[in-house]
Amino acid sequence: MSRRRQIYEGKAKILYEGPEPGTIIQYFKDDATAFNAQKKGTINGKGVLNNRISEHIFTLLGQIGIPTHFIRRLNMREQLVRQVEIIPVEVVVRNVAAGSISKRLGIEEGTPLPRTILEYYYKDDALGDPMITDEHIACFGWATQEEMHDVADMAIRINDFMCGLFAGVGIRLIDFKLEFGRLWDGDYSRIILADEISPDGCRLWDSTTNEKLDKDRFRRDLGGEVEAYQEVARRFGLLPEGSVSTVLDLDEHRKARGKKDS
Amino acid sequence: MSRRRQIYEGKAKILYEGPEPGTIIQYFKDDATAFNAQKKGTINGKGVLNNRISEHIFTLLGQIGIPTHFIRRLNMREQLVRQVEIIPVEVVVRNVAAGSISKRLGIEEGTPLPRTILEYYYKDDALGDPMITDEHIACFGWATQEEMHDVADMAIRINDFMCGLFAGVGIRLIDFKLEFGRLWDGDYSRIILADEISPDGCRLWDSTTNEKLDKDRFRRDLGGEVEAYQEVARRFGLLPEGSVSTVLDLDEHRKARGKKDS
Repeated sequence: MSRRRQIYEGKAKILYEGPEPGTIIQYFKDDATAFNAQKKGTINGKGVLNNRISEHIFTLLGQIGIPTHFIRRLNMREQLVRQVEIIPVEVVVRNVAAGSISKRLGIEEGTPLPRTILEYYYKDDALGDPMITDEHIACFGWATQEEMHDVADMAIRINDFMCGLFAGVGIRLIDFKLEFGRLWDGDYSRIILADEISPDGCRLWDSTTNEKLDKDRFRRDLGGEVEAYQEVARRFGLLPEGSVSTVLDLDEHRKARGKKDS
Repeated sequence: MSRRRQIYEGKAKILYEGPEPGTIIQYFKDDATAFNAQKKGTINGKGVLNNRISEHIFTLLGQIGIPTHFIRRLNMREQLVRQVEIIPVEVVVRNVAAGSISKRLGIEEGTPLPRTILEYYYKDDALGDPMITDEHIACFGWATQEEMHDVADMAIRINDFMCGLFAGVGIRLIDFKLEFGRLWDGDYSRIILADEISPDGCRLWDSTTNEKLDKDRFRRDLGGEVEAYQEVARRFGLLPEGSVSTVLDLDEHRKARGKKDS
């Protein structure tokens, strides 16, 4: 494993060269950051849980015809994905006001939005991921208008599906972030869903108690981060064997043996 | 004049009830504000100059078929306009990077944009006029999608015309702000251009020297605000009789006499 070429290390993931051309290994770290990396920490076992949750959601999205970069999960912390050219635009889908939109537009957190809102943010840590619009994207060539049309269409479909998926396990999907990439095939490219979908990039509130089951627990020092992420995995039936501590123990155990878990 | 009912006092203008139903008198103050009114000051004679410059531009825009609220200039500081329901969205048209977009996206001031950008800001002083998109506007019902379609079409036409108008007098139109209103006719309404177009809401750089002929002189403590505004009016042939001091003297003189100038 140590001989693999690292392509990129982000805040929550590391990308390694994959076994075949056009593939990438996506490694999920336990590192957590918030507020443009001004706040840093670790959520033990987060990487394991996000890998599993993201696999689950990407697999289901593939089944409704959303093209994604996901190929298969390799082990507890890694998945094999297609190599794409990342569109430098974070797509935020909002169903209920929370976080930055509440502050920016003065809307109380938890207020259902009259309709779903798509927001775009320019992926640039140094600039603090500023909000942008289709106009800026077209002007600076970050994506073509046709590509953004596909992005918006997919984001809306993904939202519809995920609202249902989470509702089915007693969770309200408040908002979430998506990233898309350009998959090249010769001179042609198409847009596919990339990155991950996990409690790191979603706001998930328990439908009954409004308890937060997402990274806001870390952002706002609420505690219980691992338990929240675990609860999401558990509701999807991804932890049939018991508690996250089992998973983490196993993870640590395998790491200690220096072996690749699978 | 003192018996007129004041409808609204903004940062740079006062609106009074007009002589007929559906009309408003728009009074141009010398007050200048910047950075969401954190910086305040006075530019002597600004109101007189802006009234004259805005009259000039709105008249010309009317002649190319842009519907506007402008009826006629009444006197040195006032104009008669149609009463509209203001759309709470500031439309910013950008041809060259400057000001907030340079800071937000890390683009050096003076860089020509690959294409013109339209930006929208929610008119709310308490929130600091946050940037918004069509999505927020549709979600919160600040304007319909049809209305925003008309707004965008008009903004592009206005930009084309104004780029030409300013180029003709040796000025580059870097960016500018527009406001639109809903003009009701029974149960129907249409979108027309409202507010003003003046160096308060435009960035105007001399084509040869890049000297700033706009409110940035005030924002950035460059001095020579009055001379800059006067220079814009002079190039349009709006001050044929001489310097702005003549205009200001006259203005003060008439004010001292408590008479309505015309």
